[in-house]
Amino acid sequence: MTEAKTEIRELIRALKTDYLPSVSIDFVIFGFHEGALKVLLLRWPYSTDWLLPGGRVGHTENLEDAAYRSLRERTGLDTVFLQQFYTFGNVIRTTYFAIEEILVQMGLTPEDIQGLPARDVSIGYYALVDHTKLNSVPDALTEESRWWNVDEVPKLLFDHNEMIILALKTLRRQLGYQPIGYNLLPDTFTMPQLQQLYETILGQSLDRRNFQKRMLSYGILDRLDEKKSTGAHKAPYWYRFNVANYQKALQEERMFIM
Amino acid sequence: MTEAKTEIRELIRALKTDYLPSVSIDFVIFGFHEGALKVLLLRWPYSTDWLLPGGRVGHTENLEDAAYRSLRERTGLDTVFLQQFYTFGNVIRTTYFAIEEILVQMGLTPEDIQGLPARDVSIGYYALVDHTKLNSVPDALTEESRWWNVDEVPKLLFDHNEMIILALKTLRRQLGYQPIGYNLLPDTFTMPQLQQLYETILGQSLDRRNFQKRMLSYGILDRLDEKKSTGAHKAPYWYRFNVANYQKALQEERMFIM
Repeated sequence: MTEAKTEIRELIRALKTDYLPSVSIDFVIFGFHEGALKVLLLRWPYSTDWLLPGGRVGHTENLEDAAYRSLRERTGLDTVFLQQFYTFGNVIRTTYFAIEEILVQMGLTPEDIQGLPARDVSIGYYALVDHTKLNSVPDALTEESRWWNVDEVPKLLFDHNEMIILALKTLRRQLGYQPIGYNLLPDTFTMPQLQQLYETILGQSLDRRNFQKRMLSYGILDRLDEKKSTGAHKAPYWYRFNVANYQKALQEERMFIM
Repeated sequence: MTEAKTEIRELIRALKTDYLPSVSIDFVIFGFHEGALKVLLLRWPYSTDWLLPGGRVGHTENLEDAAYRSLRERTGLDTVFLQQFYTFGNVIRTTYFAIEEILVQMGLTPEDIQGLPARDVSIGYYALVDHTKLNSVPDALTEESRWWNVDEVPKLLFDHNEMIILALKTLRRQLGYQPIGYNLLPDTFTMPQLQQLYETILGQSLDRRNFQKRMLSYGILDRLDEKKSTGAHKAPYWYRFNVANYQKALQEERMFIM
């Protein structure tokens, strides 16, 4: 615990001197596994409450660079789909008191935590990551981290439940003008798998024929020669994203799935 | 000028003590007039450069409250469509030096401006306002304010050109899931006027029949009994937004115009 205490003291010193005051970043990290949309949550020591991973912005660091750096430090991931979705600025002092209590339980004194910003405006980003490639890197403030089904998320610290709800809403909107799937599905996948991803995000079922027709019309999919070996009469084809066309579709925002 | 100097000194004192450090708000205020989309810009004294109106967040003030308050203080408008669209966090020190120069030209000393935040993260909001109802309220830092056609905006201070571009992109996306027009058109309008608004925002023409069919299908329009008196054979009907259904459509995000 002494080592952890030193590490936390260092974290708090850095909070006061190395980063923009009053500004933080929070990440809603989505993964897709076994037909369910997941979100990555952390738990602090001496607390039973979960929360989203976060980061801060260096004094001479661009916000977007800070977001990628923080995400890389936390997950080991570099090339992910990372999208700013909203900045949260409600005054939520009550949970700050709870955190001061946790810090004191960790063995810090009120002097250690004096001068911490009383309140942050937090910039929310959502990331779409390959569930299997993530290395969650805990720090001194993290006791545990794990994936939760989006619809089984418990009551979180701060306004983090609201952040997940709004990230999901933005992700659903995004289906209306940009493709989704590149960072969420394996390298090769079937049309039913792609459709399942869309249905999971939208929370509703889609017509199979229309979905396939629309998806193929965008030119973002390459069909492979092999079929999935299911033994069934109509084995589905394997597909792979055409990365160049996928990137172009992200830019042009001309996809409408609904 | 002495009075203005006192007022600016007071502004700077407030900047240092009354508001969150490192956090600002910028407004892209859109109006629609004579078939053109307009944006409201300000010019500071001793500067030929224009910029967007802005605001700051009080220490115990919710971000959204700060946005509405700042907009009200600047425009006299209370019930507008106000939408957060992006938070800008690039390090742009060069233009800060330009501002220090302007402040010194206003008669302030380097001591007056010492301790100002070297850099802000700025939360961008766009507003849709009725061009005719706006009372631009200048402050000590504003020499002039006026409407510019969106496609004739000059090179602005800071990253404000980028802000307008992204606000416009978000507004275009919004046409894909929410209705537009309530704060941009007069109380009664014709279908061609509504279509012109959509075409202006999208920067492309739309099929007249499809547009009308789609718009009527959403239930957000009430057709009035009178027609517009044009003397023409086929005078267009007047419409009015059905405010309850319009608000519902804003919430449900189920409109797709394209």
